[in-house]
Amino acid sequence: MAIGVFDSGVGGLSVLKQLIKYLPNEHYIYLGDTARVPYGNKSVSTVQHYSRQATEFFLDNDVKLIVVACNTASALAIESIQKVAKKVPVVEMIKPASTAASKSTKNSRIGVIGTRATINSEAYTKEILKHDAFNNFKVFGIACPLFVPLVEEGMIDNPATMLIANEYLNSLKQSEIDTLVLGCTHYPFLQNLIQDILPNVKLIDTGEYAALEVKKLLESNGNLETNQNYQLDFYLTDTPYTFTDLAEKMLGFKIEKPKKVDLD
Amino acid sequence: MAIGVFDSGVGGLSVLKQLIKYLPNEHYIYLGDTARVPYGNKSVSTVQHYSRQATEFFLDNDVKLIVVACNTASALAIESIQKVAKKVPVVEMIKPASTAASKSTKNSRIGVIGTRATINSEAYTKEILKHDAFNNFKVFGIACPLFVPLVEEGMIDNPATMLIANEYLNSLKQSEIDTLVLGCTHYPFLQNLIQDILPNVKLIDTGEYAALEVKKLLESNGNLETNQNYQLDFYLTDTPYTFTDLAEKMLGFKIEKPKKVDLD
Repeated sequence: MAIGVFDSGVGGLSVLKQLIKYLPNEHYIYLGDTARVPYGNKSVSTVQHYSRQATEFFLDNDVKLIVVACNTASALAIESIQKVAKKVPVVEMIKPASTAASKSTKNSRIGVIGTRATINSEAYTKEILKHDAFNNFKVFGIACPLFVPLVEEGMIDNPATMLIANEYLNSLKQSEIDTLVLGCTHYPFLQNLIQDILPNVKLIDTGEYAALEVKKLLESNGNLETNQNYQLDFYLTDTPYTFTDLAEKMLGFKIEKPKKVDLD
Repeated sequence: MAIGVFDSGVGGLSVLKQLIKYLPNEHYIYLGDTARVPYGNKSVSTVQHYSRQATEFFLDNDVKLIVVACNTASALAIESIQKVAKKVPVVEMIKPASTAASKSTKNSRIGVIGTRATINSEAYTKEILKHDAFNNFKVFGIACPLFVPLVEEGMIDNPATMLIANEYLNSLKQSEIDTLVLGCTHYPFLQNLIQDILPNVKLIDTGEYAALEVKKLLESNGNLETNQNYQLDFYLTDTPYTFTDLAEKMLGFKIEKPKKVDLD
């Protein structure tokens, strides 16, 4: 049985990359809601509606586990997704990364960057503060709404992206954080650039900790595949001009042509 | 009876501004498909599907005319829209601006900037070449996919926007155009910046020529309002964080809270 991996666009590929790294024998069904990308500036009810439809798609495809490879959907729609998923386990982005950030910080000052919707939800702040045994933590959340279109355009190493990143991250520099959650699955593709601006800060890639969580879960319920090569199926709600090129650049290998699927 | 004005987001407000300027006594129903913005990187069939739904919304609201205040929908979906609209006249962006550009050029070198979908469709090139009586015209189309998110973020006067604009427009400088169609309704908000990069080029605001076309049409069928103040109703498919602020900044006056509407 396959693992369903869901994002609004190409961002979830950073999670897929981590999944393949830590679970190299699984069959993955990747669903990108490219007809309605981006989610990050949209309202709670809209993101919940789209996330429920994605979950139904995975149930129709009989998956053994769903990875919500989108921080906005994780922050805004996890309960809606779980309600539809019923017995199928769901791994989202917020909890594993919050645990990792709490363990990583030495000075108790943690930054979170994400879409406007994720930051406004304060999902990360609430989750990180659950680990704050001594009431010391300070969490600084900054919305970086242009990072998603910049990544979707493949403008990873670009002076304009650097300028925009400097503008977004300047206040985090002032806040003297030592740990930063890359709270959007698009952001690991900007990791080098962010690290240049915040050189001594530990960056938390939400996909990595989510992948480790998936591994733990499948090991504990005896559903981990060990005897086959990984297999990838890509489904998109729209087949835009850039997906395949960008996906291959990001994953570092060739992929098969994505199939089109209608969710609405 | 009202005039329906349709765009994926805030871009159509540049058209609404021109409509109010040239037809100051009308009732306008503005529909922004903010749940699925942007359209510009999406496929033909997806843009057609969304445009048909918008047209049905206007028919339910009994409008006397529909303005497709989105160049991507104008380029990709005009036939789908007209089929649904039936007897309700539809004014789109491409034809009036193409006529204006053809009249404006002195050296027969015309640039068109737009979304990836608009440029790929070659709708402008085909339309402009219809006016090319002496087989002289050269049309240079450039996709500027990041202009929409930059405008939607209100980053009108920003060094990063300037860098990105320089990158996009550099080849048009080389091409020695004397006329440039701003082939996306978001772009008039970047007019000053574009004019700085291309100082001697006549910029064609598609909304302005579409508004003049609407006026001509309503005068000819006796449906022009002359005896009331203009009235505005805003409908959005999502109510995002930024719309009202941005709309007020762009229009230059306060607006009433937009109403939410579901198209799908």
